Amino acid sequence: MERLRKQINFIMEVDKLKTIYRQSYIADGSKRENDSEHSWHLALMSFILAEYAKEKIDSEKVMKMVLIHDIVEIDAGDTYAYDESGYETKEMREREAAKRIFSLLPKDQEIEMWELWDEFESCVTPDAKFAAMLDRFQPLLLNHAAGGKSWKEHEVKKDWIVQRNKITKEESDKIWEYCLEIIDENIQKGNVQI
Amino acid sequence: MERLRKQINFIMEVDKLKTIYRQSYIADGSKRENDSEHSWHLALMSFILAEYAKEKIDSEKVMKMVLIHDIVEIDAGDTYAYDESGYETKEMREREAAKRIFSLLPKDQEIEMWELWDEFESCVTPDAKFAAMLDRFQPLLLNHAAGGKSWKEHEVKKDWIVQRNKITKEESDKIWEYCLEIIDENIQKGNVQI
Repeated sequence: MERLRKQINFIMEVDKLKTIYRQSYIADGSKRENDSEHSWHLALMSFILAEYAKEKIDSEKVMKMVLIHDIVEIDAGDTYAYDESGYETKEMREREAAKRIFSLLPKDQEIEMWELWDEFESCVTPDAKFAAMLDRFQPLLLNHAAGGKSWKEHEVKKDWIVQRNKITKEESDKIWEYCLEIIDENIQKGNVQI
Repeated sequence: MERLRKQINFIMEVDKLKTIYRQSYIADGSKRENDSEHSWHLALMSFILAEYAKEKIDSEKVMKMVLIHDIVEIDAGDTYAYDESGYETKEMREREAAKRIFSLLPKDQEIEMWELWDEFESCVTPDAKFAAMLDRFQPLLLNHAAGGKSWKEHEVKKDWIVQRNKITKEESDKIWEYCLEIIDENIQKGNVQI
């Protein structure tokens, strides 16, 4: 029972992800999205959009990665994509969080969590690159659906979005084409600045 | 691009799952849980607790199943576990919903969704039984963590919980033992009625 109790401690600790809010609104604009909702959406997208991965991917591993990629934000908080000073301390804050939260698990699973999270963060393998593309593309879809609310609030510029989504450009021509359509439409509407 | 547009229509439609609320509260009791949060939590549990499956499971398929199992509630709404009259029309309402929502996808993926959802609902295969156990066990964990709030609100009896969790008893001795501990503790606290 000792092993199960550890696993359940972890499962209950990560429930807090349901209270960590991001800057993006959900599609109908009614509320900010939280990390658990975001992670669910990415996991679902990972199998609906699997055919757009540039190289062969391990779908199961991608799903695991996106399900756990934001767990560190329980302690470290959400760092907004365009918050430069936040990004300076992001890595340190998040590694401390990973250390505390992953260590709630039995050793073998603690190691698996570190492997998944490090692979995602390094963004080098085909699995991590595909996961990263989803992580950038999903907020773009949401912001567009919600009338560009979050872009307007933060006076986001086209260049920032293009820079943030450069992994998408490298990963999939089709999805990148879709991104450009969204960006152009939102420039025309005045939601994104040139 | 036609295929990608269909896939994105589906991805944006299911965003509504973030606004479908369940009767369970999240662990800190601060708000009701929504379907996307619940589905994320089950997917994460499916790989943390995979070793407790009675028979060999396909982890990737289990993850897909739990990620999509509540999508039908976008149209059909959440039917509370102990709502008898709601259960009389549940199947019909949910099949209509599945028909509309899954048909947003390209044909091959529409078929995959039906297969996953039908397998989950039938609860016969090892994958579906394990997924069903998680779907019953997770609200038990949440209700316990939130001080039995939702059990008290609905004056839930021990027999109802035992009946609702009979799949857990069949699936895993260890997890069932843990369930009984939780139920007994909540009877003693007056949160669950005998």
